This record gives sequence, C-alpha cells and structure tokens, in this order.
Amino acid sequence: MTDITDSTDTRTGWLSDHELEQSRERLPIVYVDAVPVRIDSRGQVSHLGLLLRMMPDGSISRALVSGRVLYGELVRDALLRHIEKDLGPLALPRVPPSLQPFTVAEYFPDPSVTGFHDPRQHAVSLAYVVPVDGECSPSANALDLVWATPDEAAGPSVSAEMTGGQDRLLRLALAHLELLP
Amino acid sequence: MTDITDSTDTRTGWLSDHELEQSRERLPIVYVDAVPVRIDSRGQVSHLGLLLRMMPDGSISRALVSGRVLYGELVRDALLRHIEKDLGPLALPRVPPSLQPFTVAEYFPDPSVTGFHDPRQHAVSLAYVVPVDGECSPSANALDLVWATPDEAAGPSVSAEMTGGQDRLLRLALAHLELLP
Amino acid sequence: MTDITDSTDTRTGWLSDHELEQSRERLPIVYVDAVPVRIDSRGQVSHLGLLLRMMPDGSISRALVSGRVLYGELVRDALLRHIEKDLGPLALPRVPPSLQPFTVAEYFPDPSVTGFHDPRQHAVSLAYVVPVDGECSPSANALDLVWATPDEAAGPSVSAEMTGGQDRLLRLALAHLELLP
Amino acid sequence: MTDITDSTDTRTGWLSDHELEQSRERLPIVYVDAVPVRIDSRGQVSHLGLLLRMMPDGSISRALVSGRVLYGELVRDALLRHIEKDLGPLALPRVPPSLQPFTVAEYFPDPSVTGFHDPRQHAVSLAYVVPVDGECSPSANALDLVWATPDEAAGPSVSAEMTGGQDRLLRLALAHLELLP
Repeated sequence: MTDITDSTDTRTGWLSDHELEQSRERLPIVYVDAVPVRIDSRGQVSHLGLLLRMMPDGSISRALVSGRVLYGELVRDALLRHIEKDLGPLALPRVPPSLQPFTVAEYFPDPSVTGFHDPRQHAVSLAYVVPVDGECSPSANALDLVWATPDEAAGPSVSAEMTGGQDRLLRLALAHLELLP
Repeated sequence: MTDITDSTDTRTGWLSDHELEQSRERLPIVYVDAVPVRIDSRGQVSHLGLLLRMMPDGSISRALVSGRVLYGELVRDALLRHIEKDLGPLALPRVPPSLQPFTVAEYFPDPSVTGFHDPRQHAVSLAYVVPVDGECSPSANALDLVWATPDEAAGPSVSAEMTGGQDRLLRLALAHLELLP
Repeated sequence: MTDITDSTDTRTGWLSDHELEQSRERLPIVYVDAVPVRIDSRGQVSHLGLLLRMMPDGSISRALVSGRVLYGELVRDALLRHIEKDLGPLALPRVPPSLQPFTVAEYFPDPSVTGFHDPRQHAVSLAYVVPVDGECSPSANALDLVWATPDEAAGPSVSAEMTGGQDRLLRLALAHLELLP
Repeated sequence: MTDITDSTDTRTGWLSDHELEQSRERLPIVYVDAVPVRIDSRGQVSHLGLLLRMMPDGSISRALVSGRVLYGELVRDALLRHIEKDLGPLALPRVPPSLQPFTVAEYFPDPSVTGFHDPRQHAVSLAYVVPVDGECSPSANALDLVWATPDEAAGPSVSAEMTGGQDRLLRLALAHLELLP
C-alpha cells in the first residue's frame, strides 16, 4: 500500500491527488490485496511472491500486491490491474472464478485497532490468493520480487521485513492454503 | 440501500449530505448487506427476515439490511449498527465470529454491469447471514418486517417485490445455506 | 455418482466390490464433486461442463464429475483423478490452491433427507469449482460432454435432465460464482 | 480423536469395534473437528475451549472436539453430538447456519503426509468454529476443559501440549477468525 501506487491511480483522472486526500479523511477506501503464488500441476502452492518496495516513509519493505478499487471498476478488474502493474504484463494471473475473499483486512491509520495499518487512510481490503503462470518482473513501483517457499514465508525473517500487518495477512493466506506450519 | 438510511448516517457528522454526494461520484463506497435469519437449536435456518421499505423513487420494496461502513468504523460494528437500526435495539444479532463474507455484491448506477443496482453510487458490499435471537420490530426507516420460510424466500412472489438485485443476493444467501431449492 | 465410476475405483484393488457394498451400509463414504468450468483471461466463467451418463437404473442423466476418495488418497489427488477419468488426460484441470469447499453435499439413500440422493450409500461430498484449460473428451464412462453457459446451466431444461440433486449442486456452484440469475 | 470417543460411537450399534477396525484399514472415515469458542455481544471471540484428554497411547494431550460422522447422520447433528458429548448437555452450541467448513483436515496414519496424524485411520475432517453460550463441563471422556485467549491459543505452550496436528488446526481456526498474531 504505497503512495506511488496511488499516484498512478490518480493519474487516470478519476480523482485529483488533493481530492483523494480529502476523501481519505472521510470515507473508508475499497482495496484489494493479492498474494501471488506459483502452483504445481496439482494446484499445490510451491512459492509465494513478495515485492520489495520503497514505503512512504522512505523505508524499504517486503509487500503483497495491494491497491485501491477505482470508481466504476469491478473488483476482478482491480485485482488484474494491480497484479499486472506490480508483476508486469506477462504475469498471466489466474484470478479465481469466485470472488469470495479468504479474509477482509481492515487497515486503519491507528495501528492498534486491528493490526492492519495504513498511515494514510482507513481501507477495507478484500484479500485473495492468485496463481500466476507467466513471467513476472517487478514493475517500476517495485524494487524487486522474490519467491519464498511456504516455510520461508511463514518464518521470522520475512515477517521482520514486512510492515503494516502484511506479514500477518501473509500468514492468514498460508493458513487458508493449509500451509501454515 | 435507501436514502433514508444514509441521511441517518450523515447526521452522525462524518460527512455532510453534499460532500457524501460528491464522493459517491468518485469513489466506490464500502457497504455491508445482512440477511437476518431465525435459526432453531440445531443452527438450521427456519426463516429469513425481509424489510418493507420506501425507496428513493417512492416505490415500496422488500429489502435486506444494508448500509455503508463509516470512516473509522469496523465492519463488525457497521453490521451491528445497521441491524439494530433496522430491526430495533432488542434484535440480539449474532454476528458471525469470522468476517469472511459469503459473497461480495458490487452495486453500480448502471444495472447492466453486475445486476446489483444502486442509482446513487458504486458500492462494494460484503454480504453476511446473521442470526437474530431477540425481538425484532421494524424501525422508523422500515414500514414492515416479514419472516419468510426458505421456500417462500426463493419463490417468485418475494423476488418480484425486491429491487436492485437484492432478490438475487437473497438467493445467493439461500445457496450458501444449502436452502436454495 | 455412478456404479461404473466405482467399479473402476475398486479395480484398483483397495476394496472388492462386495466389501465396498458392505461398508456402504455402515459408514458414510467420502466423496468429491467437481463442477468443471471454462474461464476467460479475467477468471470469469464462460461455460460449465456437464457429462451425460448412463445411471445405475439404466436411465441417462446429465451429471457433474463425482467420485469417492480412496483410502490413503489426498482430496486434491481424488479431484484430479476423477476429473481426468471423466474428461480425459488432456483436460489440464486447475485444482484450486485452497481446498475449502464451496459447499458440502450430503447424499442419502433416502431422497427426502437433504435432497441429495444416492440409492447406494450415504456419501459426504466436498464440492469444488475447477477450471479446465485443455482438451476435454468424455471418457469411456461418459456418453457425452456438453458446455453450458451460466444461463443455460441455471435453466429448467438442464435441471430436468439431472438426477440425485446434482442440478441443485450446480445451482449452488452458480451462486458461489455469482452467476445465478 | 480418541479411542474412547469411538467406542462410544460403536455402542450405538452401527458397527462393532472389530468391523470398524477393518473398515478403517480400507476407507477414509468422515470426521468433524470443532473449535468451541466464547464470543462477546459483538460476535468477537474472547476464548477458545481446549479439552484435556487421555490419548490412545496413554499420554495426555490438549485436544479439540473431534469425532466421526455416523452412517445416516447429518454433519450438523454429528457436530452437535460431539460438542454435547465433550462439553456436556448444557453447553448450548451455536452450530453455524452454513456448513461450509473453514478448512478440511486430512488425518493419516503416516504423520509426514499432511501433518495431521491419526495412528488408527485415514480421516477426512470438516472443521468448524462453534460458539457455545452455556455451561460447559468436561464429559467423562475429557479430563479437563480450559478456556484460552486467542494469544494463549496461538502460543508455544498450548502448541507443545497438542498432538496429531491439532495445534495447527487451532492456528488455522485463529487465522480464519483473524486472531492469529
């Protein structure tokens, strides 16, 4: 959930940066979070994709694919757009046919409310696991992309490098996949 | 999803009617939909609650409990607030411990996009089935409340009296409960 | 859920036909049901696959992919085995990474219990939607395979050709996919 | 998943101990696992119930409510029966209206297959979170019942006292409830 992501969004013309900032102080914002995964031919997850990102405060953090749903945009299309923006146009995401999210992450400016934290806004995020079949390359917004095994993703070193509660969201995804140790 | 509901919301002071109207033209709004149900001691649904409401265009329609999530409000609290507002303070709603919704309903001003239709806004709504144990009485916003059996709820006469796609949302809930014929 | 399917299973040697028959009178049998679907690049379902099968009583019925889980077999592998047995070795099923079923269908010899009916046994079936990417050809057990649009699948003519409650299971799948009209 | 539980089941007459033992070597057995929880008026989980049980090998272990589904029995009724057997007749379980399980736990005699381990059998278990409102007292089969906070339940000391992978199942339940730290 980076500023960079959102200035890209606002360049589409739906909302100026100033207007978006104002709305963010008044309304919860609709978000999607995606955990990109590599699966084998049996559908079993072998690796989870983690971006490396410059955060608003200048720190660098591992992160999931995350961004807002635009006015008039379907959740399915927002998922595709954010995955392709972060993983490149050849990622071939396999958005699931049902959009029942595995969880709803509620991000607040106050980190103590739910543990999901976004200093800029109150966001209600629908979270999905999305297999990607194609070539993934970190986009301009991301510094790097690594593929972690389920055990690595559940481990303390990945956790230490993620902020805003996204390490917890990753563990909720691992649990949903029955891959949490 | 009535205007009346929302003017109640706005009286809380988070957003003036005018400001809300402006944001609605620019951002998807976070909503919750709740299907209130009566269950027996085995957890089996015996009846589903349907409100009777005056709609913005002056027509009268059966409706589910529905309303927006306020800035700073948890989804769980929004669910409770809307259920108590529509069914009264003694309804004793049993909000489920997990907030994984059974579906996500995307309402658009254009009814052809998803079939879920709200002339005022683009709303992304998390939908839940919520057992209510207590005394339910339709609030000031609702003209009436009826309890329909699963078969009645799935039937054509209920369907004919619901607008905006809420009859379809009711059928999705019945399917989730394995009560769709 | 055909006898033919199960005699194939028993040929694997885990259980003789006679022994399986005896157990079926005493224990619920673990099953999987799969609704094979064609999806577009956005993950949206365009068609649902329906087999045409000779049933135990000699009638011909449309049917979903369905079969039992063998001793020592993972649910994921049972799903793959039954899909490949019914749709051929080139079907390329995309079994979902999470095995949370969209519903649990309880089949009883008495059709009045749940509406899911299997004259041979009490089966507890985990139901999944499974996209298939490859060439599908009905196997020796199936007489034919047709691809129905969501509207066709929800319609009365498909419903009239399915037995044992599988038309209802198909509607529950359509509801889970938000494709139920 | 104790022998004691199952000899109780077999006393109902469906299957002799010897016959059950034979079937267990040939068919996966249908199970339910329940995580009993205390919830507050907002539906938020405050405590999770853990039994203390004598295991088949003579060791003592914390355990979830768990047991098999009998021939002819609905999953809903099996859940109620096992909860009342383990927590007493005054527990007032609130079995959820939808029986979509939060996960499917596959127990094998070989602990290396899935991490869910049962030395006696291959069991496929549907797992649910079940609020209990009433007085809970450990039954004859259970030595004790403790109520752990979500943080305690996720901690290493509870984990060290659970066997067969049930500590992992408990963490999957906590994740589903968004209570996993």
